[in-house]
Amino acid sequence: MFEYLDIIGTLVFAISGALTAIYKKMDLFGVYVIAFVTALGGGTLRDILIGQTPVGWMHHTQYIYIITAGFFLSILFNRYLDKLRKSLFLFDTIGLGVFTLIGIEKGLQHELSPMICIVLGTLTASFGGVIRDILCNEIPVLFHKEIYATLCIVGGILFFLLQKTSISKEMLYICTSGFIILFRLVAVKYNWSLPAGTIFVKKS
Amino acid sequence: MFEYLDIIGTLVFAISGALTAIYKKMDLFGVYVIAFVTALGGGTLRDILIGQTPVGWMHHTQYIYIITAGFFLSILFNRYLDKLRKSLFLFDTIGLGVFTLIGIEKGLQHELSPMICIVLGTLTASFGGVIRDILCNEIPVLFHKEIYATLCIVGGILFFLLQKTSISKEMLYICTSGFIILFRLVAVKYNWSLPAGTIFVKKS
Amino acid sequence: MFEYLDIIGTLVFAISGALTAIYKKMDLFGVYVIAFVTALGGGTLRDILIGQTPVGWMHHTQYIYIITAGFFLSILFNRYLDKLRKSLFLFDTIGLGVFTLIGIEKGLQHELSPMICIVLGTLTASFGGVIRDILCNEIPVLFHKEIYATLCIVGGILFFLLQKTSISKEMLYICTSGFIILFRLVAVKYNWSLPAGTIFVKKS
Repeated sequence: MFEYLDIIGTLVFAISGALTAIYKKMDLFGVYVIAFVTALGGGTLRDILIGQTPVGWMHHTQYIYIITAGFFLSILFNRYLDKLRKSLFLFDTIGLGVFTLIGIEKGLQHELSPMICIVLGTLTASFGGVIRDILCNEIPVLFHKEIYATLCIVGGILFFLLQKTSISKEMLYICTSGFIILFRLVAVKYNWSLPAGTIFVKKS
Repeated sequence: MFEYLDIIGTLVFAISGALTAIYKKMDLFGVYVIAFVTALGGGTLRDILIGQTPVGWMHHTQYIYIITAGFFLSILFNRYLDKLRKSLFLFDTIGLGVFTLIGIEKGLQHELSPMICIVLGTLTASFGGVIRDILCNEIPVLFHKEIYATLCIVGGILFFLLQKTSISKEMLYICTSGFIILFRLVAVKYNWSLPAGTIFVKKS
Repeated sequence: MFEYLDIIGTLVFAISGALTAIYKKMDLFGVYVIAFVTALGGGTLRDILIGQTPVGWMHHTQYIYIITAGFFLSILFNRYLDKLRKSLFLFDTIGLGVFTLIGIEKGLQHELSPMICIVLGTLTASFGGVIRDILCNEIPVLFHKEIYATLCIVGGILFFLLQKTSISKEMLYICTSGFIILFRLVAVKYNWSLPAGTIFVKKS
């Protein structure tokens, strides 16, 4: 089941990237690259930082086929997909939960500390969007709008708290990703966002 | 012969980067860095992704001297070089063909699949320009203007089709890079470009 | 002593990054990321390029605590810190000198040539700011304003010149970093900057 969610997450991230690039009036190559980095950029950065090279997608080429599918879907149906943004949002949220766990797992495999594992989970789930925004010449939306990366961090902390209990590995995964997914749905419904860096400055 | 083309390609990429930075009114350090990343950024990204570190130019320091030469040429003669843009364009195109092959070769050395080799060839030849544009705070020209990276991809596909025939290695190289170079000259002459991502959207 | 300077440098780089992000009206997550990359981005890029992975801060997690401290200081006291810019500038300059040496040392450990060591010293000390500016969607200030990276290069050359003399390792470190620090203080006092790339172009 976990693997299928991974595939769905990659597909939806690729579609969301492609739609952004189409909106930016890029050509087909630009749309493909943006779809690619949105879906795989976070994991690629993670692999580079921990030194697991050649990076993941060079050996697991199925991801490239998934992105190619997302690319063609976006090119052909971008008008309809745009209307489906609400449905896509659900899958995007699932991707967020799943990718956070994948990043944490990678960190554990490399015997890194819990704090670094949480950083890697957050990178995997949310930095594809940062690279996408840089390539599109925008300030990353992650840094000033949605409460996105924060969920990965809080979910990661929950992961390591639960791990200390006698919970089974399967339950640990379901609880953590479920928490991230639910939390995001609530956060978006009630329009939660992080305060700005000027939070403690008195307005004069 | 191949090695000389490599040097010419590096020099011309460095000059094209330096001219861009001069046009952007950067200082001497900025001009040098932009010349450097335009010429070596694609190969550096490739080496990082496949894990061949320290990256190439740290051991093959001749590239740094070539870039330094391109830097001084650009600083001293930028007015004249600007007028030579048409002649430089030919060398730039040669660089495109040669660097694509170098990237594919690196992938084969690391026993990566043909698809990944083509990705690496495209990265090597064209992502120096992407990094240059990001550092200059522009949307990469590669994503919305010229039919540049597409040539690397098509050339890479040709490489692996020809490889299956009984063609000699030398001929394989000459045919592939020759194809890329000719194709680009024709593409620019007739002002070909990739369609935008909205290609299948009916205008209303 | 050297280690303490390293800590002070990291803290001040983090604060300077955080203040920039606050000024850009980012949210708390954005402020934290910008503080992080300003302080550790240069060293991280260096580690990736030479292939020393997992990158430094994944094993030396004390840096993350220092950055977290800088983050909270900036959030709580950003008004006061802004007024302290002149005092912070001194520490920033110390960071510049110390980080240059750390980068050169890393290069020597990997048996790279002096030229590459100087490149690594410059990267370590000054490319955190480049990544910060890219994430903030600005042309890196390093490329068109202050005579910042040039000091690292000149300091690096001095390092290798002095190394050939019979000077003790301790004196070598003190002289090099002292030179960079003093040079910068003078450069800023007299408002020195690098000429633009158009230096040799006659104005018409």
